[in-house]
Amino acid sequence: MTATSELDDSFHVFDTTLRDGAQREGINLTVADKLAIARHLDDFGVGFIEGGWPGANPRDTEFFARARQEIDFKHAQLVAFGSTRRAGATAAEDHQVRALLESGAEVITLVAKSHDRHVELALRTTLDENLAMVADTVSHLKAQGRRVFVDCEHFFDGYRANPEYAKSVVRTASEAGADVVVLCDTNGGMLPAQIQAVVATVLADTGARLGIHAQDDTGCAVANTLAAVDAGATHVQCTANGYGERVGNANLFPVVAALELKYGKKVLPEGRLRETTRISHAIAEVVNLTPSTHQPYVGVSAFAHKAGLHASAIKVDPDLYQHIDPELVGNTMRMLVSDMAGRASIELKGKELGIDLGGDRELVGRVVERVKERELAGYTYEAADASFELLLRAEVERRPLKYFEVESWRAITEDRPDGSHANEATVKLWAKGERIVATAEGNGPVNALDRSLRVALEKIYPELAKLDLVDYKVRILEGVHGTQSTTRVLISTSDGTGEWATVGVAENVIAASWQALEDAYTYGLLRAGVAPAE
Amino acid sequence: MTATSELDDSFHVFDTTLRDGAQREGINLTVADKLAIARHLDDFGVGFIEGGWPGANPRDTEFFARARQEIDFKHAQLVAFGSTRRAGATAAEDHQVRALLESGAEVITLVAKSHDRHVELALRTTLDENLAMVADTVSHLKAQGRRVFVDCEHFFDGYRANPEYAKSVVRTASEAGADVVVLCDTNGGMLPAQIQAVVATVLADTGARLGIHAQDDTGCAVANTLAAVDAGATHVQCTANGYGERVGNANLFPVVAALELKYGKKVLPEGRLRETTRISHAIAEVVNLTPSTHQPYVGVSAFAHKAGLHASAIKVDPDLYQHIDPELVGNTMRMLVSDMAGRASIELKGKELGIDLGGDRELVGRVVERVKERELAGYTYEAADASFELLLRAEVERRPLKYFEVESWRAITEDRPDGSHANEATVKLWAKGERIVATAEGNGPVNALDRSLRVALEKIYPELAKLDLVDYKVRILEGVHGTQSTTRVLISTSDGTGEWATVGVAENVIAASWQALEDAYTYGLLRAGVAPAE
Repeated sequence: MTATSELDDSFHVFDTTLRDGAQREGINLTVADKLAIARHLDDFGVGFIEGGWPGANPRDTEFFARARQEIDFKHAQLVAFGSTRRAGATAAEDHQVRALLESGAEVITLVAKSHDRHVELALRTTLDENLAMVADTVSHLKAQGRRVFVDCEHFFDGYRANPEYAKSVVRTASEAGADVVVLCDTNGGMLPAQIQAVVATVLADTGARLGIHAQDDTGCAVANTLAAVDAGATHVQCTANGYGERVGNANLFPVVAALELKYGKKVLPEGRLRETTRISHAIAEVVNLTPSTHQPYVGVSAFAHKAGLHASAIKVDPDLYQHIDPELVGNTMRMLVSDMAGRASIELKGKELGIDLGGDRELVGRVVERVKERELAGYTYEAADASFELLLRAEVERRPLKYFEVESWRAITEDRPDGSHANEATVKLWAKGERIVATAEGNGPVNALDRSLRVALEKIYPELAKLDLVDYKVRILEGVHGTQSTTRVLISTSDGTGEWATVGVAENVIAASWQALEDAYTYGLLRAGVAPAE
Repeated sequence: MTATSELDDSFHVFDTTLRDGAQREGINLTVADKLAIARHLDDFGVGFIEGGWPGANPRDTEFFARARQEIDFKHAQLVAFGSTRRAGATAAEDHQVRALLESGAEVITLVAKSHDRHVELALRTTLDENLAMVADTVSHLKAQGRRVFVDCEHFFDGYRANPEYAKSVVRTASEAGADVVVLCDTNGGMLPAQIQAVVATVLADTGARLGIHAQDDTGCAVANTLAAVDAGATHVQCTANGYGERVGNANLFPVVAALELKYGKKVLPEGRLRETTRISHAIAEVVNLTPSTHQPYVGVSAFAHKAGLHASAIKVDPDLYQHIDPELVGNTMRMLVSDMAGRASIELKGKELGIDLGGDRELVGRVVERVKERELAGYTYEAADASFELLLRAEVERRPLKYFEVESWRAITEDRPDGSHANEATVKLWAKGERIVATAEGNGPVNALDRSLRVALEKIYPELAKLDLVDYKVRILEGVHGTQSTTRVLISTSDGTGEWATVGVAENVIAASWQALEDAYTYGLLRAGVAPAE
């Protein structure tokens, strides 16, 4: 369980995804989830992983027991979270404090009250007894050989209400031996200028080593964390992807990226920053939330450019149009193919797909024209890479990629007097010289079409069995003429190792879905390396 | 088109959702969408709404023409966005500049280069000519009686590369008569401390009135905007929900909330801040993106408390556990164990619809339960007032409002070998004791159903002839299982004097559309004063 990292102790990246992050509405972690996340965080290279509150619930107790046995931490130290002792007793005889020691964690975070009203209202004890609780619990744990960090809950609100008392809690913790005293903006209402001023004053007045724990209720948690560092804090508490109660916590990834790339401060082990995007997405998978497409640094849109006007300049010097090289955080630049697209962005996009268009001005011109024409009709290729690749290949080869030739299809949706619905579809097509007619039912007309297409093709292309429709989006364009508008459908398909998006546009949702389905299956066969039919 | 607002000119809230926000990957706005968003933003009370780049594309040109005719702005002034003139010509003869004047907008934002490398590489002109382009274009537009704001693109990167040149662009714009010079962090790589230092220096050195335009690539756009205000900027450019290129722009809602609630600065007309949550969600509906549950101030989780530990203290004094009263921004506190939302808002809503529920606790309770149950299933009544009113009346009368009883319906979509599609629907229903079977064709299955329902009912209810479907939106909920997700359809219907929205939710788009259509016609008949059938 001991970390053997090159990280020095002068600056702490402290992750609390497993404790505070788990407070997010909709997150519910099993012990296995917590172990998986702990491995990812250690792999990323944080110095401290707060694992939960052992003794407070059986799941956290089990997590600490299993983490000690099952995880060979490369970088991180595991931290147990708990509270100062109860009022009117001693730390040595407090069950909750004992459970912290029994967790085996070498580092313990103690939450302490530092807002006078909270001491009176929530703890229901005196201001003096609260100080005694802090001093006693810290010294007891230190005497047992643990490192101790003290989280001063509601510190910034408390400082506004009673600055002297708030500072006396910091001083008491520090004098009792706390290694770091963490100032928490528990309600998340602060702005960077306030954080910076308070941290600077507390540092000057107490001399304690300070940390920061910011919640994102004003949308400033990352900036508040950095403001505290500017004022002298040397310990930052964050959560992966900003998960946390209410709006969330300071997001680990932009905080670390700013410290490394903007401050030039080494806070991760060598080479780990490049894993940022991968680890952000992997943790999102474990907690079962879709990774935010627009998250700073790591979102799939974070370095996506609608080229048009600037594409030629981007080709000469991409750094003029992005604040960092996306590879530094393991992300990639993407050119969005949009109706503003010009030659340069099509060439860049071709390169990204491994199709060299270099030099062939006539070909690139044809592709640009085709994209413009199709986007005018309602297609969008920025969200449908696979359909764009099929279009590009069709222009390169001067004929569309065809694995099958559809003769006709039909979908019927029927409402029954009992309120249930029947959906049935029939597809007639040719593949490898064979005429196939297939019928299938589904829970909607598109689902029925999807199934009938599968039934028709799987005999000839068994590769299709692996394909799975994972997302389906409908957008009505120029929606001012009711159901006479144009309909655009985007479909995401997965084969278990990758995902691709296709687009269809037509005067109605069924026909648009059909187009997107045809592209989805065609691209799936291309990806599987199947040779197209003659 | 002239705004008659109580807003004074000393501080500008400038929204660029329709121009810069529309750059977000996945957003594709129709003219109707842009008009709808402009109405919401004006309703919210921003001072300026940047509508797009007239002349650069036909959609934006049409938007300006229609906005002038169709929207009676209460607070906002409409702003046209464009560029300084081309190199080597005069502003007076520049087509693009002329299109800005022809848009009729009283306020014009001009984008200007302020980074020396961008002048050379993207504009391909000299640094001096760039200054001449700024001076000439600003003076020309001022001479035509327009207010002019100048966006200095890539200002902060440019300032780092060549501070003297960057400042000379600000000085040139200001001396030529620009009302505000906006410093843009176009690549979004800045942190608050840097923004604050640069804005303060530029203000001291040029004396120009300064604005700030921040992108969110470091996760600090809100803080960067506030840092600029701290340093003396008096004009903030934001987008609703932070929509924008790459990661996005500074989010209008937390910026305005911070200015009003943390700075105590009146930047919205009286009483508008309470509309923040509603307007944030309404705009998300128009752009067809799910509102972020964790957005500061307006997310449904923004004031959600996991009760447990603190429940009693929260009951005594909720302000100890939240940074603001959520009602200030139109949001509500939620206890995650027992949802307390409901009663009051249902009563208010009833009053708004002219249905007095006052006092009847049991009835209000039933409506709350019914709404909760339906919203859990995917219905949304915030965007479907007419369906809500039908639900409310059904609970008041203890039976649904029925003008007709549907026996069954069927829709067929067929693809023909020639690539055309046939859509046919049949409806069987009872109205005023008569059984009617009607069949109709349409350009899609929903259109065919709509027409067959009309054919069936118009003989009995001639009032329906006036009804027109004006908008149709589809949203796939929980879209992680492909076509097996739940589908929500919103339909807007007009009778020439008013418009109403209805909602349907089902396992497929046809069945969901049918529900929304049934509500749309039922509500249309209610509005027309037709007595329900027995």
